[in-house]
Amino acid sequence: MKPEILDCTLRDGGLVNRFFFSDELVRDLYQTNLEAGVDYMEFGYKASEKQFNRKDFGKWKFCREEDIRQVVGDNSSKMKISVMADVGRTEPSSILARKDSVIDMIRIATYSSTIPEALELLEDCHEKGYETSVNIMAVSSDTEAVIHEFLGKLCDSPADVIYLVDSFGAFYPEQIRNLSALYLGYAEKKGKRLGVHAHNNQQLAFANTIEAIRCGAGFADATCDGMGRGAGNCSMEMLVGYLKDKQLQELPILEFIEKHLIPMKEAGVRWGYELPYLLTGQGRVHPSRAIQFIQEGCKDIAGMFAQIAAGQ
Amino acid sequence: MKPEILDCTLRDGGLVNRFFFSDELVRDLYQTNLEAGVDYMEFGYKASEKQFNRKDFGKWKFCREEDIRQVVGDNSSKMKISVMADVGRTEPSSILARKDSVIDMIRIATYSSTIPEALELLEDCHEKGYETSVNIMAVSSDTEAVIHEFLGKLCDSPADVIYLVDSFGAFYPEQIRNLSALYLGYAEKKGKRLGVHAHNNQQLAFANTIEAIRCGAGFADATCDGMGRGAGNCSMEMLVGYLKDKQLQELPILEFIEKHLIPMKEAGVRWGYELPYLLTGQGRVHPSRAIQFIQEGCKDIAGMFAQIAAGQ
Repeated sequence: MKPEILDCTLRDGGLVNRFFFSDELVRDLYQTNLEAGVDYMEFGYKASEKQFNRKDFGKWKFCREEDIRQVVGDNSSKMKISVMADVGRTEPSSILARKDSVIDMIRIATYSSTIPEALELLEDCHEKGYETSVNIMAVSSDTEAVIHEFLGKLCDSPADVIYLVDSFGAFYPEQIRNLSALYLGYAEKKGKRLGVHAHNNQQLAFANTIEAIRCGAGFADATCDGMGRGAGNCSMEMLVGYLKDKQLQELPILEFIEKHLIPMKEAGVRWGYELPYLLTGQGRVHPSRAIQFIQEGCKDIAGMFAQIAAGQ
Repeated sequence: MKPEILDCTLRDGGLVNRFFFSDELVRDLYQTNLEAGVDYMEFGYKASEKQFNRKDFGKWKFCREEDIRQVVGDNSSKMKISVMADVGRTEPSSILARKDSVIDMIRIATYSSTIPEALELLEDCHEKGYETSVNIMAVSSDTEAVIHEFLGKLCDSPADVIYLVDSFGAFYPEQIRNLSALYLGYAEKKGKRLGVHAHNNQQLAFANTIEAIRCGAGFADATCDGMGRGAGNCSMEMLVGYLKDKQLQELPILEFIEKHLIPMKEAGVRWGYELPYLLTGQGRVHPSRAIQFIQEGCKDIAGMFAQIAAGQ
């Protein structure tokens, strides 16, 4: 069965360009997603304006209601709209009641260490009427006991979707298979769905996404041309080509990439697989080290490998 | 169990640069493969010097005995040496008896339509004392009946290894799983092994290679930095990192890439995933169209998609 397809080009891609997307690009992406048959479009983060200066970022780090409405009006389409709320970086007071918002879903991003705060934010969003997901990041650094513990808690919460997130691009397909079974074992008993969000450090974002779908994931994240932090995400054009579902169209996505993302890359904005990302993925460490390596024009790949192997 | 790892950087990579590798690069690659623990190193093709002019290509299109010996001497190592013989493009008379050669394995590349000629060449190589494989190309264009037919014939031959080859980068992991089971069903009965050779058009070369290994493939092809025609091959550094086998070392591969392949790419030699390759992979057509598109600096991705979809 086709999963719900969630486009997070603006949200994960915004981590590449500090959310400085042109209004034209955002309007075109909305239209692209409508034409492509995408189920959810994520506009960005709901970041705290107390913690982050609006001048330092584009507006999609904050996703004010009026900014989204400038693009979608009342969103008189079947496609739903999501935003991401980072635990500890979001003011719950900035989240309106759903009846007053065009947003349909709030996705709560958390580490395993901040599950209590995540549950608090989740309750608030649920009471305001939103669909909700919890996206537990960096689980490649968690023990299986820790994963069991947070899954137990989350499955007793009102979350609609529990996301398997491979933040470091560290997992192989068989690990995705095992983790999907583990997550689904908890989620299905409580009528919740499994989502998948992959990163491309080992060129496995697409393979891991379709592996999770085969295992029963009901939500899959993707971005146009894989735009996202570091090695990027599962590419929407790969996923749509794979699913061969009559609701989905690949051509509008390719047109969007041709019009906006290829020129953006030619202008120097950089994402997608490169060798340093493989090393952070294999080493199960945060990609920031690889991002810095690439930005500084470093060449010493072998040295980077030796450092990561030595736990430095 | 660890499969036999075959490095075909010179052979598939040679399709990118017409086999014009420097002697230093080839010597360093031989040393790299020894240090990395690779089981087989493929030096190139055994192409007919009647059909191809030696001036138009580097020497690894022809793999004369003396050229290989200049690099490996008598190859007093455990690592074995292979060359590829293309059906219809090889003079059997140019293949010495194995006792007079440093070559251990001849890999015979064929289409399903040239199986009789492949069997003839195979018999010749087998009688000369070589290990042999048959690599059936472009099977994404073959019906299942055709595949059954050639598997039956090949498994009655003296071939040691039958290769599942995804020439167009068209297969998804579940198709690799099904085809691996089909190939192994024939091969195992006759004591033959399964090999896998993947292409990266859909960023699945690595994922499909490890899928085949999990299904029982005993030979896996890879190249340094995935160097190979068009979107390239499964990357050796990904495969070695995945296998975590004490025989295998990733560091020498990274050092080789840093010394030779990154400068080669910076000098303008181009391989690896790009969007046009996705479209030929999805459309199950030869990557030559994408290679031409990229070389000519075309931009009209959407137009290319529409053409392929229309069967043009």
